[in-house]
Amino acid sequence: MLAPSPPELQERIVSLRGGIGSVPGVRVSGVHAGIKRRKRDLALIVFEREQACAAVVTTNDVKAAPITVSNEHLASGRGVRAIVCNSGCANACTGERGERDARASAAQAAALLDVAPQQVIVASTGVIGVPLPLDRVQRGLERCVDQLDEGLKAAHDAAEAIMTTDRVPKLSAYAFYHEAKRYTIGGIAKGSGMIAPNMATMLAFLATDFPVAREALQRSLAAAVDGTFNMISVDGDMSTNDAVYLCAPHGTQPPPPIFEHVLGKVALDLALAMVDDGEGATKRLEVCVVGARDTAQARTLARAVVNSSLVKTALYGEDPNWGRIVAAAGAARAGFDPQRWSIALNGRSWVERDGIETLTEAEAHRELEEREIVVTLDLGLGEAAATAWGCDLSRDYVRINASYRT
Amino acid sequence: MLAPSPPELQERIVSLRGGIGSVPGVRVSGVHAGIKRRKRDLALIVFEREQACAAVVTTNDVKAAPITVSNEHLASGRGVRAIVCNSGCANACTGERGERDARASAAQAAALLDVAPQQVIVASTGVIGVPLPLDRVQRGLERCVDQLDEGLKAAHDAAEAIMTTDRVPKLSAYAFYHEAKRYTIGGIAKGSGMIAPNMATMLAFLATDFPVAREALQRSLAAAVDGTFNMISVDGDMSTNDAVYLCAPHGTQPPPPIFEHVLGKVALDLALAMVDDGEGATKRLEVCVVGARDTAQARTLARAVVNSSLVKTALYGEDPNWGRIVAAAGAARAGFDPQRWSIALNGRSWVERDGIETLTEAEAHRELEEREIVVTLDLGLGEAAATAWGCDLSRDYVRINASYRT
Repeated sequence: MLAPSPPELQERIVSLRGGIGSVPGVRVSGVHAGIKRRKRDLALIVFEREQACAAVVTTNDVKAAPITVSNEHLASGRGVRAIVCNSGCANACTGERGERDARASAAQAAALLDVAPQQVIVASTGVIGVPLPLDRVQRGLERCVDQLDEGLKAAHDAAEAIMTTDRVPKLSAYAFYHEAKRYTIGGIAKGSGMIAPNMATMLAFLATDFPVAREALQRSLAAAVDGTFNMISVDGDMSTNDAVYLCAPHGTQPPPPIFEHVLGKVALDLALAMVDDGEGATKRLEVCVVGARDTAQARTLARAVVNSSLVKTALYGEDPNWGRIVAAAGAARAGFDPQRWSIALNGRSWVERDGIETLTEAEAHRELEEREIVVTLDLGLGEAAATAWGCDLSRDYVRINASYRT
Repeated sequence: MLAPSPPELQERIVSLRGGIGSVPGVRVSGVHAGIKRRKRDLALIVFEREQACAAVVTTNDVKAAPITVSNEHLASGRGVRAIVCNSGCANACTGERGERDARASAAQAAALLDVAPQQVIVASTGVIGVPLPLDRVQRGLERCVDQLDEGLKAAHDAAEAIMTTDRVPKLSAYAFYHEAKRYTIGGIAKGSGMIAPNMATMLAFLATDFPVAREALQRSLAAAVDGTFNMISVDGDMSTNDAVYLCAPHGTQPPPPIFEHVLGKVALDLALAMVDDGEGATKRLEVCVVGARDTAQARTLARAVVNSSLVKTALYGEDPNWGRIVAAAGAARAGFDPQRWSIALNGRSWVERDGIETLTEAEAHRELEEREIVVTLDLGLGEAAATAWGCDLSRDYVRINASYRT
């Protein structure tokens, strides 16, 4: 779990409501371009000045065209001026046409904004194998440019426009004070959480007005993603379109600790919003693995438990079946020691090693009736810890995914 | 897929109905011992003579007590004379008491059969963390010994007694002719298939009257398991209790090709019976990966597709969402080349690379209405192939697992 802000940082951090729209120098919009039947489906984020941009993208062998094209644009070394993201169409498995279309949509936005096409990042989410309707994107982008704005309303529209099965738009922003100046980090994201470990289909766009050197920005983003977005989804199971982008004014310095701390808070807010909005989810599950030999072991086991279909269905049924937790941890083959473990439930000791239960079945069942469940698995091996977040697997998950179209 | 029997073998193979009860020199029984409320829950398999025994057991870090104790018994080098298996209690995560109880149950059977305790294999399946009720096992074993018999009825009782959420008992047997003599391989199994990739909870007991040398028997079993039981469940995701045992009279020779062929048929029958009886399953999915660089790549990708929750829910909904198949293959990061693949559905070309569909959505939907679906994924990389089998993910799966007790 991300440690709570230490007091000396806490008093220098202010929660904001406007997501990426809270960041000075950033204007956003989200419109209905007609890619989906009714809902907003096209978002535009525009930066007043050229930005350094860090990226963490899917490691799937199959990468959607916008991922490939955005990689090229970032590699060009031009400062980023805009991000275009559509929902309703993933532009993945669309062959050479897909890349042509992704490039064309970047060029459309570039022309409207009078910047170079290489300064535009593109992202798509939705159904695989369907080509991007470029004419609708063009008309939608024109309306996006007209509606660009700062603040909550515009960021809300943009966050809505990137949703697929999400039920609520996801925004987070904080201001912080550093050397007597105020800075902001904010973001928007979409994602149906880690319910489907084979395809998280998440996107997040983060921005700040704190100037950071490019390489340092990438390091900060990678560290933030490792403890947040990557702990709600297994690395190896990313979708074809997953991407997190972080834009910041070009700087020369690595960022101070408060920057990384606030960046982690924004990323965690958005990651937990995905878990809570998970397809069919009725509960949040937080799995803290403590007493691990090292962080890698703790992360592997925390993810293994939170990903187990049997743990997730038991959680849905409020069934105190701790055997499934132990079996999932053992199945990860990451050095779980069956002689040393113990489990706590919502902070109360639940099972000691050798299967001795310290809560009655009725007590454990009552704890599982909570909306947020915390399982702490102590490995008894060392001092490292990690937390993963997930949700239950409900009948609604099956209903939603049995006939998902857009 | 296991190749169909070549004609010169085919004419020497006869299908039998009695499962492990068809094997000469083997007697079996299955009774209600009271571990479960109503149903049969204790099976006994007894061999007339000492047997060589090969084993493939769970690689979970957490191994149930009967796995550990049976390993010790096999390592003692004594020929196997009996197998005891109960359902309703996994005897896993039960600490030192668990091993004591597993040893005691082997000793109970040994005393009744007048053999050494080390000559008895024990196996358990059911809820984790609950101790084995030894008094009921004792009384049940006494009734098992009374009812030992050859043939279908006894094998059916035994196959029923090892079921958990299984709806039907699983038996398979074939006779074959080798050098003018008739031999038999037969088996029983339980398993709710690979629906829950985090815990397959499968058991299989196989026997033959064909004498085989111990090391050769182990090699034959490992090869048969690799192409069958391991292709309906991911290796790394075995439960605490998974085990396959194969018993044969002590021999001095490696077995002839017809032996391995028939062993593969018995194993495949039982593996497919698990898939078809999968919790909540309404369809069987067969994923053939062809055109792979090597068998390892083909197996990894076939399993990745068949394990994907999104592929499985789409199948349940008869939704022709081939993008999920490609995304699952790419997510396995086993060298899937997004420029070369193509997919066929039930033998008809479905999607060429670049996402060009050669079936209409209506045609693909009609194919998905079948009870048995065959997806052939051609990687376009080489000549190796592998097949994995699974089933759809239905609302009933969630219902069953949300309140699973015994």
